[in-house]
Amino acid sequence: MDMSRPLHGGNLGEANLKYKIERDRFIDFSANINPLGVPPKVREVLLSNIDLILCYPDPYCEGLQREIATYQEIDEESILVGNGSCDLIYLIARTFTPHEALILLPSFSEYEYAVKISGGRCRFFKLPEERDFLWEKEPILEHLEGIDMVFICNPNNPTGSIISKEDLLFTVAICEKKGVKVVIDEAFIDFVEDYHHLTLLREAVSRKNLLVLRSLTKFFGLAGLRVGYLVGPKRLIKELERHQTPWAVNSLGQIAAKEALRDQRFIEETRSYILQERAYFWEKLKKIEGIEPYPAAANFILCRLCKDGMNSLSITEKLGFKGILIRDCSDFRGLNNRFIRVAVRKREENLKLISALKEAVKGEEKN
Amino acid sequence: MDMSRPLHGGNLGEANLKYKIERDRFIDFSANINPLGVPPKVREVLLSNIDLILCYPDPYCEGLQREIATYQEIDEESILVGNGSCDLIYLIARTFTPHEALILLPSFSEYEYAVKISGGRCRFFKLPEERDFLWEKEPILEHLEGIDMVFICNPNNPTGSIISKEDLLFTVAICEKKGVKVVIDEAFIDFVEDYHHLTLLREAVSRKNLLVLRSLTKFFGLAGLRVGYLVGPKRLIKELERHQTPWAVNSLGQIAAKEALRDQRFIEETRSYILQERAYFWEKLKKIEGIEPYPAAANFILCRLCKDGMNSLSITEKLGFKGILIRDCSDFRGLNNRFIRVAVRKREENLKLISALKEAVKGEEKN
Repeated sequence: MDMSRPLHGGNLGEANLKYKIERDRFIDFSANINPLGVPPKVREVLLSNIDLILCYPDPYCEGLQREIATYQEIDEESILVGNGSCDLIYLIARTFTPHEALILLPSFSEYEYAVKISGGRCRFFKLPEERDFLWEKEPILEHLEGIDMVFICNPNNPTGSIISKEDLLFTVAICEKKGVKVVIDEAFIDFVEDYHHLTLLREAVSRKNLLVLRSLTKFFGLAGLRVGYLVGPKRLIKELERHQTPWAVNSLGQIAAKEALRDQRFIEETRSYILQERAYFWEKLKKIEGIEPYPAAANFILCRLCKDGMNSLSITEKLGFKGILIRDCSDFRGLNNRFIRVAVRKREENLKLISALKEAVKGEEKN
Repeated sequence: MDMSRPLHGGNLGEANLKYKIERDRFIDFSANINPLGVPPKVREVLLSNIDLILCYPDPYCEGLQREIATYQEIDEESILVGNGSCDLIYLIARTFTPHEALILLPSFSEYEYAVKISGGRCRFFKLPEERDFLWEKEPILEHLEGIDMVFICNPNNPTGSIISKEDLLFTVAICEKKGVKVVIDEAFIDFVEDYHHLTLLREAVSRKNLLVLRSLTKFFGLAGLRVGYLVGPKRLIKELERHQTPWAVNSLGQIAAKEALRDQRFIEETRSYILQERAYFWEKLKKIEGIEPYPAAANFILCRLCKDGMNSLSITEKLGFKGILIRDCSDFRGLNNRFIRVAVRKREENLKLISALKEAVKGEEKN
């Protein structure tokens, strides 16, 4: 078992050591956080409630659970709040200890690690690069023999591709018949234009075998506070609850999340900003010779380096020394050193990246 | 398997629902948090770094790990930081999956739950009430057959009793020979006058089978932010690290903890305050007819209700309706409805408790 830890973007401590630049001087395209930051009232609420650090948090986040229930119009008994959605991935794996899980490639690397550390094995299905890593219903379903859990990331990280609700429901139905649990990680779905036609949140309440993960980390800019949640049938949620550590989510994370969900204006502004800016950014990336951006549904764009001699590590480091962090995707199973991922950020930041990337690419050609 | 969740003090949300009093109007003796609050600079640092909520935390708390290493003069590879020490108890149980654990009674109830939820069994050794629940070296060691993990809380929660270093080292040595891992939970040891003669932190680095838990939650008033750590031999720490979720500790918890450890003055003030005030509070409790406080080494006092007809739930509720929370200990395995636990708080608060308790006790007699 390969037990090296998955790598991730957004590691400013590591970047500081490597590039000798102060943490807050980086422009970070390597983590996919909302460029508009946090809803303004969240900061206010935190500053005026800072003394909450002195008190134990709600041990099982019941207040926040109710708030999410209202926001999503879902029964609170179908909701479980966790210390970020990654924590919930681990909780799922150790509660249900899948014998063998099916994982699509490339995708978020913690599914594999969580399954293996819980004693299970992984089978991989490689989405075809030549078809933009798009979902393939039939071929995937041919691989279910002996599988008891499937992880699906929608929109998929790092490819940015999306799966239709129809295809997902078909998959969930087939899996239900075979007794296979389906985990759909919707960590980035809030950024997608027509997310309400794509999410399976509501279906997760009524199906027997479906768990849907949501994150508040990315969309609401709460990466530092760690808040995610999970929706599923009550029976499965109850089992998961039994395995969760008390006080999993800190007090400030809990009040920040409650406040964030109330800011409808921030939610709408974010969606419309990402939609517009992603299109602009994508076109700019497309115009750089040697860079091929993939269709992107969320707040990040996967790019292929398509000229000979280009290398994701070398480009990442060139930008890093200029204080610009991007995600070298060479460590993603199913990708290689011809892929990078960049988050959609503010206009002027995106333009800085474009210009630095152009220069870096030119340098590569001379190699 | 009895899988109901352990109960805990400090649950202000529940108290609010039950007693219809605003959360911040309670005087909370049910959780054992430093009455001096947080080190003053911690609040400052949090307020001026609130934007850290936007960034991913150090995924494995390396900066904080180094800070603890310096503070404790211990190699950083022997330290693992977690989302509160309770989270680390669960991590220990699921990493080493003890087949059968020995647990002393009464003690912190999460050891049992964590072992059972990880698939293990528990054997209990009841410390004798008539001897103030003091540690008994020989009888305990007679119960090691078939045991692969022992949990020891020192000072013990909820009894407040302490175990000598000599007795502990003797136990650790016997256990090492038998291949039994020993987990010593020192969550409250910072409050103990001669803690440096009692802690096994340093020994944990060099023994094969010893893990020592520390909390920043209680002593540094960071209950809401969740920070604890664990010291042990590198080999065990490495195994534990592999099982830990990335980004387990939030960004604010990490900077708060770093700052807290630097405030030597706060540390000394707390120790001398608790020492003095506990003695005063203890004497006052002792004078209440029907209340028998146990010898207390940390920042809380276990009391026995020693008159006929007295009942911990009824007393707890009477005080609760007055906005004073104490810990009804009837749910602790090995205790019953004749025990309550109270934290040492500020002088005027302690006097309020004394007066309310006197009144409640009088009421009980009339039952």
